[in-house]
Amino acid sequence: MRTETEGRSNGVSVSTVRETNLQLVLRTVRELAPCSRSAVASATGLNKTTASSLVADLMARGLVRETGETSRPRVGRPGVLLALDETSLTAIGVEINVDYLSAVAVDLLGRELATRHVHVDARAAGPEASVRLVAETVRETASAPELAGRRIVGVSVAVPGLVDPSGTVTLAPNLGWRDVPLRDRLTALLDDPGLPTQVDNDGNLGVMAEFRDGACAGTPDLVYVTGEIGVGAGVLSGGTLLRGASGAAGEIGHLCLDPDGPECACGRRGCLEALAGIGTIVAAAVPDLAAGGRPWTGPEVAGLVEASVWRAQEGDAAAVAAMERAGAWLGRGLAGLANVVGPGVVVLGGYFVPMGPWLLPSVRAALAEHTFAPDAGGCRVELSELGLGAAARGGAAAMVHALDTGRLPLPEPAGGQGK
Amino acid sequence: MRTETEGRSNGVSVSTVRETNLQLVLRTVRELAPCSRSAVASATGLNKTTASSLVADLMARGLVRETGETSRPRVGRPGVLLALDETSLTAIGVEINVDYLSAVAVDLLGRELATRHVHVDARAAGPEASVRLVAETVRETASAPELAGRRIVGVSVAVPGLVDPSGTVTLAPNLGWRDVPLRDRLTALLDDPGLPTQVDNDGNLGVMAEFRDGACAGTPDLVYVTGEIGVGAGVLSGGTLLRGASGAAGEIGHLCLDPDGPECACGRRGCLEALAGIGTIVAAAVPDLAAGGRPWTGPEVAGLVEASVWRAQEGDAAAVAAMERAGAWLGRGLAGLANVVGPGVVVLGGYFVPMGPWLLPSVRAALAEHTFAPDAGGCRVELSELGLGAAARGGAAAMVHALDTGRLPLPEPAGGQGK
Repeated sequence: MRTETEGRSNGVSVSTVRETNLQLVLRTVRELAPCSRSAVASATGLNKTTASSLVADLMARGLVRETGETSRPRVGRPGVLLALDETSLTAIGVEINVDYLSAVAVDLLGRELATRHVHVDARAAGPEASVRLVAETVRETASAPELAGRRIVGVSVAVPGLVDPSGTVTLAPNLGWRDVPLRDRLTALLDDPGLPTQVDNDGNLGVMAEFRDGACAGTPDLVYVTGEIGVGAGVLSGGTLLRGASGAAGEIGHLCLDPDGPECACGRRGCLEALAGIGTIVAAAVPDLAAGGRPWTGPEVAGLVEASVWRAQEGDAAAVAAMERAGAWLGRGLAGLANVVGPGVVVLGGYFVPMGPWLLPSVRAALAEHTFAPDAGGCRVELSELGLGAAARGGAAAMVHALDTGRLPLPEPAGGQGK
Repeated sequence: MRTETEGRSNGVSVSTVRETNLQLVLRTVRELAPCSRSAVASATGLNKTTASSLVADLMARGLVRETGETSRPRVGRPGVLLALDETSLTAIGVEINVDYLSAVAVDLLGRELATRHVHVDARAAGPEASVRLVAETVRETASAPELAGRRIVGVSVAVPGLVDPSGTVTLAPNLGWRDVPLRDRLTALLDDPGLPTQVDNDGNLGVMAEFRDGACAGTPDLVYVTGEIGVGAGVLSGGTLLRGASGAAGEIGHLCLDPDGPECACGRRGCLEALAGIGTIVAAAVPDLAAGGRPWTGPEVAGLVEASVWRAQEGDAAAVAAMERAGAWLGRGLAGLANVVGPGVVVLGGYFVPMGPWLLPSVRAALAEHTFAPDAGGCRVELSELGLGAAARGGAAAMVHALDTGRLPLPEPAGGQGK
């Protein structure tokens, strides 16, 4: 799905010539920092007066700062060095999933400033209360001491479902949502209704985080698989996110692996997520604890995952078998993905990570067995190191990236406050 | 898989500065034709003397010609108009499949000059004899009267299997091939061993033909599905061909749709092509005629398809049911594709086309039923209008395109012969 900030790139509303040049200088400083104003002028082809004026503007907006050091060029005068201002601004990413809310605030360099992770029961809460929880989480994150004095450039929200270009969640079966205008409702609840917001699929934002900060960062044919009650994916091909004609690419959780399989939350039978989602794993791994049946509350899901891992560590046969069986189905699903798009690396995220030691061998074996290309076309399967905050982090980083590329309006100058 | 001609783009062997400028002028003439030398100079930023010299060079190579008309600019002198020379050169595309060889020769505008289609039995013939058949087909096509006086810029070969960057067919179960160095063997058999050749997957070349010349030409998220004994696909996403990390993208024939399904030529169970390939359809549609069992010879396959269609037209219950059943499995397979990459249009090719009236309703119903996005994300399923020559045609067009983009060396000047 095309996000709101991307959608803006088609318009001329945001970008005037000056704004375009500000973004050019911003990207140049990001690339060359530390660098002098002269270096910026020469790299951009702008004259020095214009470049200096644009730098002054970016400094007033909190995007660029002087490092306090000077360059010592072989010819010409020494120049004060510039860098991105990592001290003035922040972008916030939030993920709402079935059983948790995760939030990450990053600086202009994409470094984490603050994180939050809370158990929720989004399905039971319903869309209205869930949106209020998101807004509350944004507010709390924004008021974290680590963010003191910073202005927020934008908020990204990740959801486990289909999102349309307006930021409406059209379908999220595990949340029980259909046609929830998340972006509009969230904007109305934020203190600053003019704050740029975007809503995107959790797999899409997760793979952006992996591509940027993960253990396999920079892999051009990269897939991130969410391991939650639902299973989804974000797919990069040749470094580009696959969205598909209608924004529904990456929905591997609903690959039908067995026409006679168990019923899925989507109403079909034998979907990957019905066979290998976290709910199915814990129900078989700790049947006594899970006997109350779904839906579980947020803390219950985390507890059941923890208990399953603990029992597997203790060698409990049911727990180990549950994970190995789920791993074999997951491997079959990844083989479908490998047959269609041929990834170089698949990163498993979410609750699949703590279960990794028992999942991975059967995932890898089934992937190799069921992919047409020998040795699964060389596709590796690895565990994420980004934790449950991957999608939130990817969303926050996407907001920062959108600043550089003109898909997000630059923050207004902060007047005399500067910093 | 990266083709040979693409691979060359990474080297500097082909492109000198002059060659790069020749390609630039060639692309410019393609875009602006009919156009004057002045128009070429102004569009490329080259000075008029250089542009004229490059145009003269392209004319000597048989790539550009004067139309015989002159421009009447509002200012300046009239100029002789230029166009691509569609009279001097040709590119040849061949497809070798289980039961046929198809060849297409095109001019610089990508228009068909000559086609051939012959029944073969490639599996029984084995790789060596099959490569000789390909070489023979190239020779016969090149000597067709429609190609008299033309020089060949390159030959493309499409195969139903995995191809590595060197042009070796690493795996093609329906041909019974493994690690067949098709490109090397073919080059050795051609009259001109210096003739540029490429080998690519039939689905990949088929989707290029559909994107260029098909009924849904220009659709950026387009899939072409080969309907032969094997089933494969070429996948365009955002106008870019998905090749995957190891070149094995698009192998939808081996999506596992039913773990308990029938055995596939690849050795697995329940693959899409074992459930909906042409062999499976005709075996059920005309069981009496197909009773001799596989493998069938080339003419037998075509005959069985024809008989199946004829019986379905007559209302024969077995024939209709066979196609409807296969269509339902094909729709399930396309749903897997839709869940992963979200195409806007899927074009069914090959023998699926004559069976279309009975396949399409169940394909579309199953696609809608088994795709997570409502209404299959808007994905349409259509029948190809390019016939069994789609992959050959796509390959020939790819060779022409490779000339413009520097992935194929420009033909040498033809000396004093001109065209």
